Amino acid sequence: MSRKTVVIVGAGFGGLAAARAFRGADVDVVLIDRTNHHLFQPLLYQVATAALSPADIATASRTLLRGQKNVTVLMGEVTGVDATAKVVRLKDGPDQAYDWLILATGAAYSFFGHPEWSDEAEVLKSLDDALTIRRKLLAAFEKAELADDPEEARRLMTFVVVGAGPTGVETAGTIAEMARMTLRHEFRRIDTTRARVILFEAGPRVLAAFPEDLSAYAKTALEELGVEVRTGTAVEMIADGVVRAGGETVEAAAVLWSAGVEARPAAQWLGAEAVRNGGVVVGSDCAVPGVADVFAIGDVASFRQDGKPLPGLAPVAKQQGKWVGKLVRARAEGRPDPAPFRYRDWGTMAVIGRSKAVALLGPWKLKGFIAWLAWSMVHLMLLIDFRSRVIVYVNWTWAWFTMGRGARLLTRLP
Amino acid sequence: MSRKTVVIVGAGFGGLAAARAFRGADVDVVLIDRTNHHLFQPLLYQVATAALSPADIATASRTLLRGQKNVTVLMGEVTGVDATAKVVRLKDGPDQAYDWLILATGAAYSFFGHPEWSDEAEVLKSLDDALTIRRKLLAAFEKAELADDPEEARRLMTFVVVGAGPTGVETAGTIAEMARMTLRHEFRRIDTTRARVILFEAGPRVLAAFPEDLSAYAKTALEELGVEVRTGTAVEMIADGVVRAGGETVEAAAVLWSAGVEARPAAQWLGAEAVRNGGVVVGSDCAVPGVADVFAIGDVASFRQDGKPLPGLAPVAKQQGKWVGKLVRARAEGRPDPAPFRYRDWGTMAVIGRSKAVALLGPWKLKGFIAWLAWSMVHLMLLIDFRSRVIVYVNWTWAWFTMGRGARLLTRLP
Repeated sequence: MSRKTVVIVGAGFGGLAAARAFRGADVDVVLIDRTNHHLFQPLLYQVATAALSPADIATASRTLLRGQKNVTVLMGEVTGVDATAKVVRLKDGPDQAYDWLILATGAAYSFFGHPEWSDEAEVLKSLDDALTIRRKLLAAFEKAELADDPEEARRLMTFVVVGAGPTGVETAGTIAEMARMTLRHEFRRIDTTRARVILFEAGPRVLAAFPEDLSAYAKTALEELGVEVRTGTAVEMIADGVVRAGGETVEAAAVLWSAGVEARPAAQWLGAEAVRNGGVVVGSDCAVPGVADVFAIGDVASFRQDGKPLPGLAPVAKQQGKWVGKLVRARAEGRPDPAPFRYRDWGTMAVIGRSKAVALLGPWKLKGFIAWLAWSMVHLMLLIDFRSRVIVYVNWTWAWFTMGRGARLLTRLP
Repeated sequence: MSRKTVVIVGAGFGGLAAARAFRGADVDVVLIDRTNHHLFQPLLYQVATAALSPADIATASRTLLRGQKNVTVLMGEVTGVDATAKVVRLKDGPDQAYDWLILATGAAYSFFGHPEWSDEAEVLKSLDDALTIRRKLLAAFEKAELADDPEEARRLMTFVVVGAGPTGVETAGTIAEMARMTLRHEFRRIDTTRARVILFEAGPRVLAAFPEDLSAYAKTALEELGVEVRTGTAVEMIADGVVRAGGETVEAAAVLWSAGVEARPAAQWLGAEAVRNGGVVVGSDCAVPGVADVFAIGDVASFRQDGKPLPGLAPVAKQQGKWVGKLVRARAEGRPDPAPFRYRDWGTMAVIGRSKAVALLGPWKLKGFIAWLAWSMVHLMLLIDFRSRVIVYVNWTWAWFTMGRGARLLTRLP
């Protein structure tokens, strides 16, 4: 019997956990990703706001899997799947055959039927996205300092964030803090503390996934940082840097979009059933019904547990990746399937600025500094390699005491 | 009497040293740079070879000068100088008037009458340059791992460096080391130890500014790292990734150019006399003859001491910046000029790979590990802020023990 091949598409939390489950197994694993790195997405907003460098939260996938000799990492873009021939099609390389296929391609932001807004607003999913946002934020203040006209300076110091989920809240809070604390003593012609950060949320409250009292706390904490929070306000138009929402018209230097996600196009590759946001409907074993030996995990999958779809969170992807890896390995090694998958919810957290957060950890609700401490510790522990941990720790400690941001680099004015 | 204004163009070693000389002075200082940061150029090759992140060796100029309330930092591109009206022209902002002007705009690479080679070869002067080189190097190995054809893989693992000054030697040595040590256990289809790094040098030896025995040592050390050193070999042609030199034709995935520098166009702005490489001829007080109240320092200036032009090195720029700052400050404050400028040569160093270097420190010639230790200490001490020092130290220690490179990030295949 020849050695079997498992192909994993996507080196995010799900794909990496799956690849690791094959350590020492008698199968070949091919991990394919469009980038060369695993990205710790929960801290991506800190790259966008110049607190961390890309390399602090990303590590080459090859390095992470160096010790697993049965894993080949390929940097390439998957363009489709032929489930009959059992091959994955690559844009820049030959087809890749599989015996089992694990799709962990994640999600992208969705503009709710307004694809034209994608040219107007920035999203935050990749390192390139984060660097684009960083460039826009830093350039806005530089241009304001150069500007002759106070009206123009005011426009340049106005930022709009759409969507008050964790990413929107974290980003809005951090921009406000940067303007009010980090930058205030460094400009001579503009007063950066007059920068405006406006957070629009269509729903009735911020951080809707948290209990009402934590939402209310987060809103107050944001307002104390100087963020103008507009809940119940859907965006009606974005064009040429102008945002219209709830009767208000705002001219902004940057619009950041964090309002909704849709799965990447794996369902189309397979001709499989998908839910409204594009997620591939999978069974209780993460398998795609009607397509042999293909699994989908994490944000690209729609998995129901106790009648409800699991949320698009890193721990879901990680736990599914680990479990599916175990399942496929058992099948490859001729052992019985593992006990059925069940997501264990250890809690969720969102951070608001330099020393506040909210956290929901099972029965416990935390807020304020203690929640921020919990958030910091958990995120440091989750960061994948030791070096990153040390560097993030140094950066955070330095930033905490100095209000500085170490990665404020701009190579040219956009 | 109204407050006088000193304009400094360029936030490199010279410009920054000049700005710092005005701490507490009763003048307004305006520091203008095309980027928003001061860059520690001696370590730029480590960003290009993925050992350090941009933020490890660059800091926002505003942050460095935050404490000097009389300094305004502007990010802008100077397009000319009107020495009669005493204003500096900016591309994106209003004219900036000066009473004294200090030009510290540095140098760029020169292609010796072959401007078309600038599209074929990469240079290493800015953070953008370093990230472009990093992308090319990393992508070459990724594409080689994807390639069907062994010939193509061989071409993708061939790198040419032109010019064996410190930058060329450091870069060539580091690429060879990266291929032979860092990457060798991380690819499955290609053998990265078979990568070729070819260093062309038109002159008779590498590191020509060093004594002959150190040059010979450096050549042997490079060859031990796997670099093919071709001295006495001028490049005749670079086109479509093919380099021809000394009868040899090499197809390369990347060509790095570090063969000669020319001053940036400050002489044209002033209609001033320039030497062959474009450097503004200055007097013994760094002033531009015939142009009132204008000084040029560092790589953009041609300054003769003891009948010889000073070399284009960071310490020259730093010492000149400090001295000219003192001079202008004395004049602004109605005090006599300081004692004439004299460059003090503390020595030069060049590093070859992970633990070897050559150093010329006054009467002392060092080579090997002891020179590398000296190099490491000096460069850590020179790094401008404490945070960078700690992070570079962590990165270096980690890299030294693991052979790893922490900043191996590629967001897409070019």
